[in-house]
Amino acid sequence: MKQKELKALLDDMSLDEKIGQLVQLSGEFLQANDISYGPREKLGITKETVNLIGSVLNVAGAKATRKVQDMQMRVQPHHIPVLFMSDVIYGYKTVYPIPLGLGATWNPKLVENAFQKAANEASAAGIQVAYAPMIDVVHDARWGRVLESPGEDPYLNSVYAKSMVNGFQKKLGEKQGVVSCFKHYAAYGDVESGREYNTVDMSLSNLFQNYLPPYKAAVKAGAKMAMTSLASLNGVPSTADKWLLDTVLRREWGFKGIIISDYASIYELIKHGFAGNIEQAAKKAINAGVDIDMKSPCYAKGLKSLVTDGKLDEEKINQATWRILCLKNELGLFENPYFGISEEKESNKNVSLSNRKLARKLATESLVLLKNKNGALPLHKEEKAVLIGPYADNHQLLGMWAIHGNSQDTVSILEGMQKYNPDIKVAKGTDINRNRHLFEEMGFFSEKQIDQLVSAPEVEKENNQEALKLAAGADTVVLALGENSLESGEAGAKTNLCLPDNQLKLIKDISKLGKRIVVLVISGRPLVLTNIVDKVDAIIECWFPGTEGGNAIADVLFGKENPSGRLSMTFPYDVGQEPIYYNHFSTGRPYHGSQHKGRFVSKYLDAPVDPLYPFGYGLSYGKTKIKNIELSNKYFKQNGKVKVKVNLENTSDWDQKEVIQLYIHDKVAGLVQPVKRLIDFTKVDIKRHSEEEVSFEISPNQLAYFDNTGKEVVEKGEFDIFVGKNSMECLSTKLELI
Amino acid sequence: MKQKELKALLDDMSLDEKIGQLVQLSGEFLQANDISYGPREKLGITKETVNLIGSVLNVAGAKATRKVQDMQMRVQPHHIPVLFMSDVIYGYKTVYPIPLGLGATWNPKLVENAFQKAANEASAAGIQVAYAPMIDVVHDARWGRVLESPGEDPYLNSVYAKSMVNGFQKKLGEKQGVVSCFKHYAAYGDVESGREYNTVDMSLSNLFQNYLPPYKAAVKAGAKMAMTSLASLNGVPSTADKWLLDTVLRREWGFKGIIISDYASIYELIKHGFAGNIEQAAKKAINAGVDIDMKSPCYAKGLKSLVTDGKLDEEKINQATWRILCLKNELGLFENPYFGISEEKESNKNVSLSNRKLARKLATESLVLLKNKNGALPLHKEEKAVLIGPYADNHQLLGMWAIHGNSQDTVSILEGMQKYNPDIKVAKGTDINRNRHLFEEMGFFSEKQIDQLVSAPEVEKENNQEALKLAAGADTVVLALGENSLESGEAGAKTNLCLPDNQLKLIKDISKLGKRIVVLVISGRPLVLTNIVDKVDAIIECWFPGTEGGNAIADVLFGKENPSGRLSMTFPYDVGQEPIYYNHFSTGRPYHGSQHKGRFVSKYLDAPVDPLYPFGYGLSYGKTKIKNIELSNKYFKQNGKVKVKVNLENTSDWDQKEVIQLYIHDKVAGLVQPVKRLIDFTKVDIKRHSEEEVSFEISPNQLAYFDNTGKEVVEKGEFDIFVGKNSMECLSTKLELI
Repeated sequence: MKQKELKALLDDMSLDEKIGQLVQLSGEFLQANDISYGPREKLGITKETVNLIGSVLNVAGAKATRKVQDMQMRVQPHHIPVLFMSDVIYGYKTVYPIPLGLGATWNPKLVENAFQKAANEASAAGIQVAYAPMIDVVHDARWGRVLESPGEDPYLNSVYAKSMVNGFQKKLGEKQGVVSCFKHYAAYGDVESGREYNTVDMSLSNLFQNYLPPYKAAVKAGAKMAMTSLASLNGVPSTADKWLLDTVLRREWGFKGIIISDYASIYELIKHGFAGNIEQAAKKAINAGVDIDMKSPCYAKGLKSLVTDGKLDEEKINQATWRILCLKNELGLFENPYFGISEEKESNKNVSLSNRKLARKLATESLVLLKNKNGALPLHKEEKAVLIGPYADNHQLLGMWAIHGNSQDTVSILEGMQKYNPDIKVAKGTDINRNRHLFEEMGFFSEKQIDQLVSAPEVEKENNQEALKLAAGADTVVLALGENSLESGEAGAKTNLCLPDNQLKLIKDISKLGKRIVVLVISGRPLVLTNIVDKVDAIIECWFPGTEGGNAIADVLFGKENPSGRLSMTFPYDVGQEPIYYNHFSTGRPYHGSQHKGRFVSKYLDAPVDPLYPFGYGLSYGKTKIKNIELSNKYFKQNGKVKVKVNLENTSDWDQKEVIQLYIHDKVAGLVQPVKRLIDFTKVDIKRHSEEEVSFEISPNQLAYFDNTGKEVVEKGEFDIFVGKNSMECLSTKLELI
Repeated sequence: MKQKELKALLDDMSLDEKIGQLVQLSGEFLQANDISYGPREKLGITKETVNLIGSVLNVAGAKATRKVQDMQMRVQPHHIPVLFMSDVIYGYKTVYPIPLGLGATWNPKLVENAFQKAANEASAAGIQVAYAPMIDVVHDARWGRVLESPGEDPYLNSVYAKSMVNGFQKKLGEKQGVVSCFKHYAAYGDVESGREYNTVDMSLSNLFQNYLPPYKAAVKAGAKMAMTSLASLNGVPSTADKWLLDTVLRREWGFKGIIISDYASIYELIKHGFAGNIEQAAKKAINAGVDIDMKSPCYAKGLKSLVTDGKLDEEKINQATWRILCLKNELGLFENPYFGISEEKESNKNVSLSNRKLARKLATESLVLLKNKNGALPLHKEEKAVLIGPYADNHQLLGMWAIHGNSQDTVSILEGMQKYNPDIKVAKGTDINRNRHLFEEMGFFSEKQIDQLVSAPEVEKENNQEALKLAAGADTVVLALGENSLESGEAGAKTNLCLPDNQLKLIKDISKLGKRIVVLVISGRPLVLTNIVDKVDAIIECWFPGTEGGNAIADVLFGKENPSGRLSMTFPYDVGQEPIYYNHFSTGRPYHGSQHKGRFVSKYLDAPVDPLYPFGYGLSYGKTKIKNIELSNKYFKQNGKVKVKVNLENTSDWDQKEVIQLYIHDKVAGLVQPVKRLIDFTKVDIKRHSEEEVSFEISPNQLAYFDNTGKEVVEKGEFDIFVGKNSMECLSTKLELI
């Protein structure tokens, strides 16, 4: 449709029709269109509203979306098609590792490919908009949604933001992509105490420097939609924050796309105490700049009277409607309302071989080898290995937010290992968790299901005995442990980050046998592994590794692949250190290098200051060394560039991938700066027994920080330049901006 | 001295002399004046600087201060006396409960008396300025300095700020008081992750509403000095924060007094990365408004060249010097440089009977009865009670920051109980802690001392057996447990807030005997008591109760006194909830009362949202009930007042004190508000079997909040009004400001 026609359409629409475009409802409203008033009545939504809605939440599948599209176009007076939006967070039918695992690959190109493939699958299933990437910077492993984020670093998350948005939208023109809706704008990742939906509160310099960059990167990459955060930021719920949505996002950053609320977050302005009723909530949200109201009655029930009572300028509604019509038009929905729908592609291509291959590669690169004492891994041909644990023979490797994925498509760890050793013996050993209350709190399990999850005491005892018997006859015990997939993800906040007591007991029991122990950790967050690290020989953090998880794990266990994952989020020593992150601000009495000694430094009496495993950390099977840090120039000017180079030497028999990380520290600045912050990295392939030069170019703009008005400042002066294989072990030199 | 003479003195002083007035050094510099260059060289301080200093840190005692005063006046060219400043935090020789215990009394009048008595003792010992009150609002029990604060509430801390400043300064004119130096300006209590000296970062509305009020109250009460915080706030170290010190404190609040750095905090601007060297640090601090440099070389070595090089206006130094001279003159030091020094008073009155009486009363009111199952307490005459635990026969009841107190003056729990039962049997049971590393980290113990603190395994075993034998013959076991006094206080941050394993084992062992168990907890912070609460019959939180601690505890144990302490800081259920505090901001999905059910509310999967014991909580031996909340009017105007009243009924045989607490919640505001916040309270004496009316008056200004420019806003609308005995159990009604 031409702009002129589109404008004419807008002009011809009634106020009710326009408001309808701003309303998004979920499938339950649509399936029930003529027969039931249940969900409609719950929100006070009328049948007329349902007929006029502009977009649909989480209806997926070619057949279902086609049916809903036909139905909605029939009843909409101008036959305007709806947009189908859904949670496509880290894959569609083919599920890749959770984003925290994708973060650990430090491989944005592969991640871009994954998002492109996910978009292809999703578009065939009728989805046009995906609620991703989630690029909130996360500092606290207690928060369950760290699963959905690439990690704790603003620069690294920005790099992924770009690759994820690009992956989704690359083939949009060919109807094989999806519109990328980045989230959760802004700074949702800093909820206090790691408690879901809790308050976010910080200085503006901190916000601009450490939390906003990934969203800005998504905008720059062309993301066409943005989702607000459920939390309040500095006293203002983000869903009604005009400064955040209009001043910063639209005006300063030039975002032209659509802003959508999070699930019911306009309605929740009332619970926040920021609006007194539905009408006030609607007014605050639309004035702040929210175009679409996801699953709440506020726009549907509140906007019309605001306009007719003269409390709201209809132009606000026109603008929001226009943005939505423009996107529909851009996608060509007026010409082809089904977009990429393809029953054939859907059935043929989902979990295709090529998708599986990519999923396997990504999962392989996401695995982080945390410990490998005396080369316990890879497993040796001659040794007898057995597989024990609740995740040994278990297909639940997708993680909470893979709502379209199918565990039947998933390769379990056992299946993966059987390809190398068909006779491998397996035992469950124990349940994932034996706390019924925990499963109840997860909100999705019936008491009957919990009966299956928490074995009867006698069964648990049998499981234990079977496992110990199996272990007794082995050289090496591979233990597949971790969290239930519903222990992380949205509303999966936890105060205890250790493995559960029953799994710890299993480790303890087995460690008494004196066998080599390799632990595979399945988790949606950094766990506290402090109490197991000395009891075992090797640990691999496997995240929720996705559809090809079992194959990838086996590839690494048996040494077909050399692990190369590096943590994108700090692993705490103790939950009492949370929030903990590598790029914390300098203090006046640092534990390392203070003029104070003994007690009076910034530390804990009963735990280290350092985490168990730092940001950027991970082992491989080979051994490399970074040497000879050198700058092309010790000084440079505002318009200059400096090259920093190191030599990377591989002294081992393994071809290896290393993630070489470039950090800076601004030695003296107008505001206190992070002790270290990442400004660049490269993932290098280094052949066995070889040496290579790795170099980065530094520009002054990479040294900038943000002041408390949100202004970017580049200050002259000295900077520490660090190059290393993780955030704690680096070579360093000094560079001065003159 | 008349103003004119004082001005003439300033005019006659050399630049070196003036700078000297701004320098504060500690005793080691002065004792070593002619014989050693050790500490001077360490800071690069010359003998000439030492001769010119304006104030002295932590030299105390009539004899010592007199000697130093004589010596310094002799060498200072104009014979200007020095000021003696010291840490008098919660008593001098007579030690009262730690401030967190004082906070639990909810009795500001008694606290004022204690501070007056402390000032009297301190002034006799030659001290003229006390570094108190510390009134930082504290949200995180991991932080060791919660010991020094009255608690987590801005209003309650403000009330105490006033009483503490008043107590110190009341008898200043009679030379029996001390100048009050409030601290740590500003918001030091919010160090991230509870880690000492860590970063503070928050929105301005949060700062103004929740952290600044106590400092403002101290200014309003006439405090003549302020100390900066060691931390940075929103990127600016408070010690160099011109906005904080000059704009807010001096200009907006009209503070006329002296601003002093915290210990070495000007020098630490360098470690913060906020200054490149000593000269820059000095310049930033003096320009921000810091008059005195405590124990750092910056002013002594940096200021002069700044002036002579034209980088600093000498007027800045004149102003700071003038403020110091004015205080010296106000105290009459030019006429009597010894101020309140009195060797006689010092020896006679320290730990006088009347001081002891007050200390006992305060300690009694500070004890918080947390649990009392089936009236386990008070102890009954006919029952046989024994006393077991590392704090049973132990005089270390003063807490870390009572540096002038003497444990020999202290009444132990055993001594207190013996007054009621001379034959009471006692056993140690176990050590306070058996982790040598923890004691090493505390920074004050030699390996030899640690040998005594951590018994040999065979001794520990004997202790255990002795205790179990003793317990076996008793009806009731009183267990005196807790933390070592160096586990809290400055740089006493901890990640684990449970009692140590060896004490938990003792409880477990004894609980097997089936006796009544009463636990006394000695601690400088809220501990996590979740893992003991179900194993014991009664718990009293005793804090570090001070000189008369043993007597106060015995008075309560034996029912001579009815406990009335109420928590001024939340006791967490788990360390993973930290920071946790009652007046947190509203969320969109509250655990209680959300439209969401099951999983998707603001909670943890594995722990409650609520703490173990909430702010304001505490039991007494009797039973009271609050009934019939009533407002004099449901609506009121900006200039109006409303009375809220309840009936308090005592249905028990005990005369009792109840702390009736008045909270509000602003239902809809321009910024998200706390779910509840304290605006008034009263401690009521209610006779056995009686009923009384308790009422409060509410003015609109009590309903104000601060916006993100720091402006106070009173908005029309509805407020929930809560009256209760703690922050969780309240009666409520609604009030509207029209």
